Amino acid sequence: MTEHRRGFRPTILYEHSRLSTRLGARVTIASEVCQPTGSFKIRAALHVVSHVSQNLLIASSAGNFGQSLAYACLQVRKSCIIAMPKKSARVKIEAVREYGGQVDLYDTAIQSGDDRVRELIQEHPEAYRADAFDDPLVIEGLASLGIELAKVTPSFDFVLIPIAGGGLSAGIIQGIRQEGAKITAIGAEPAVGNDAALSLKAGHIVKLDKEPQTNADGARTRSLGVHTWPIIKDGMTDIVEVSEDQIREAVRLLFTLANTKAEPAGALAVGAMLSRPSAFKGSNVCCVVSGGNVDPAVYADILLGS
Amino acid sequence: MTEHRRGFRPTILYEHSRLSTRLGARVTIASEVCQPTGSFKIRAALHVVSHVSQNLLIASSAGNFGQSLAYACLQVRKSCIIAMPKKSARVKIEAVREYGGQVDLYDTAIQSGDDRVRELIQEHPEAYRADAFDDPLVIEGLASLGIELAKVTPSFDFVLIPIAGGGLSAGIIQGIRQEGAKITAIGAEPAVGNDAALSLKAGHIVKLDKEPQTNADGARTRSLGVHTWPIIKDGMTDIVEVSEDQIREAVRLLFTLANTKAEPAGALAVGAMLSRPSAFKGSNVCCVVSGGNVDPAVYADILLGS
Repeated sequence: MTEHRRGFRPTILYEHSRLSTRLGARVTIASEVCQPTGSFKIRAALHVVSHVSQNLLIASSAGNFGQSLAYACLQVRKSCIIAMPKKSARVKIEAVREYGGQVDLYDTAIQSGDDRVRELIQEHPEAYRADAFDDPLVIEGLASLGIELAKVTPSFDFVLIPIAGGGLSAGIIQGIRQEGAKITAIGAEPAVGNDAALSLKAGHIVKLDKEPQTNADGARTRSLGVHTWPIIKDGMTDIVEVSEDQIREAVRLLFTLANTKAEPAGALAVGAMLSRPSAFKGSNVCCVVSGGNVDPAVYADILLGS
Repeated sequence: MTEHRRGFRPTILYEHSRLSTRLGARVTIASEVCQPTGSFKIRAALHVVSHVSQNLLIASSAGNFGQSLAYACLQVRKSCIIAMPKKSARVKIEAVREYGGQVDLYDTAIQSGDDRVRELIQEHPEAYRADAFDDPLVIEGLASLGIELAKVTPSFDFVLIPIAGGGLSAGIIQGIRQEGAKITAIGAEPAVGNDAALSLKAGHIVKLDKEPQTNADGARTRSLGVHTWPIIKDGMTDIVEVSEDQIREAVRLLFTLANTKAEPAGALAVGAMLSRPSAFKGSNVCCVVSGGNVDPAVYADILLGS
């Protein structure tokens, strides 16, 4: 019943009647915050490290993918270097190190994570360049969550998915399809970094000029990936833009009405319900709470806000 | 897979390697914070309301039992009056009301919860006096958690249980016995309200002069009950006293290393490991996190402390 020593655990599904009442729908939370590394990314990382031949993996990550990759490498005795923005959540940097990952801090004002990873790969040409989202192996690994959600009865009308690079969305869509389920997939994205919403409207990938400065640090991506985009384009019905205030309110609601510690990006799905209160009225909605890794001071500040 | 509409859900079991490393043991959390009303009390309340003939129930509760009783009454169309201390956590008072329970606020400086309930029972002689812990029906209902824990493999060496009136402890001990499992049950009690620890040493129930002023508001009881005591006396090996600082540190560790929102009383088991770091070294320990209902401001204050 406890977590697999080397694996991830099934998502945790629960309803709280007060959250459902507040949001005007039957809301089931699919919580990934109790995964070994505190987010859904462990599903992707374990799949990647166990399917590539290389023993060294290099990746750029705001944090959750980084710590998951480090944890996954530890399980299979591989190594990794994680390029992280200097201003990443402190808890995330510490976690990568605690799992034995090497942290490489870079300044986002000077270069992008992609640029930094390119430099690191030049230094270590034997390494596998692991991408936090734009890799078919990542999408395959994340399909496991879609498969779990597709098996829930009665079937959800909607699944609301926090969206950044699109790995989680593409994976869930793929898993749902694989099971032949009919659940409408909706993305939830910070409004200040709405590249995915713009992409879905435009019919092609829209890339932001720079990393968006949203409080949802797990969603500070500039664009969807070439592997995630086609799946999202076909499989995602809509992407809801969530304001920074709504993200913070969603974190508070999850705390108060569902005893759930979500990081800001992890609360995006609930934020989408605040952004579009009438869209989901009376429906059977699954909100994916994708991760819970947030600095105590940041979290306390959100709780004390109003 | 989601909660039973009218029931409680199985406890959620998970390990976080960083929490285990920090505490020096293999630590599995048994979390009750995602129960319908946010604590283990729903197991007791549902059992009571469905086994008594009366349609009105009256109880005194710091909060968690109160909201669980209100929720349980709502499920079976019964009514309840909950006597609550005026200084109960605001979220707990609100929750009782939201579930349709009638809240009766009393001043702990003037009378005890027991006194107030006696007055209410005189006004409503047709009612069932529901006790938060000292009722064989409560213990029977809570045995369900012991049964779940007894079934986990490999078997736990220790189960650490927050203790107030002793209902949860007695129930878990009874459930473990029923399954024939051999798990050492240890209580975790606020040091400033150590009546249970004193009772176990003295061999008889020790009652405090007044409600202890611990931050763990779920553990503000003056003594064990006549029904819980004999089971605890025989079945509990030891009761660890946890300081207020350790309770707060335990709340922070659960937040930081296990993405778990615990109320102070809910963090007592982890606090016991901080209080006795060598006692559980290298063991396979289950920490019962009994509830998660805490005011945001109180919680933020704990997170910001050091």
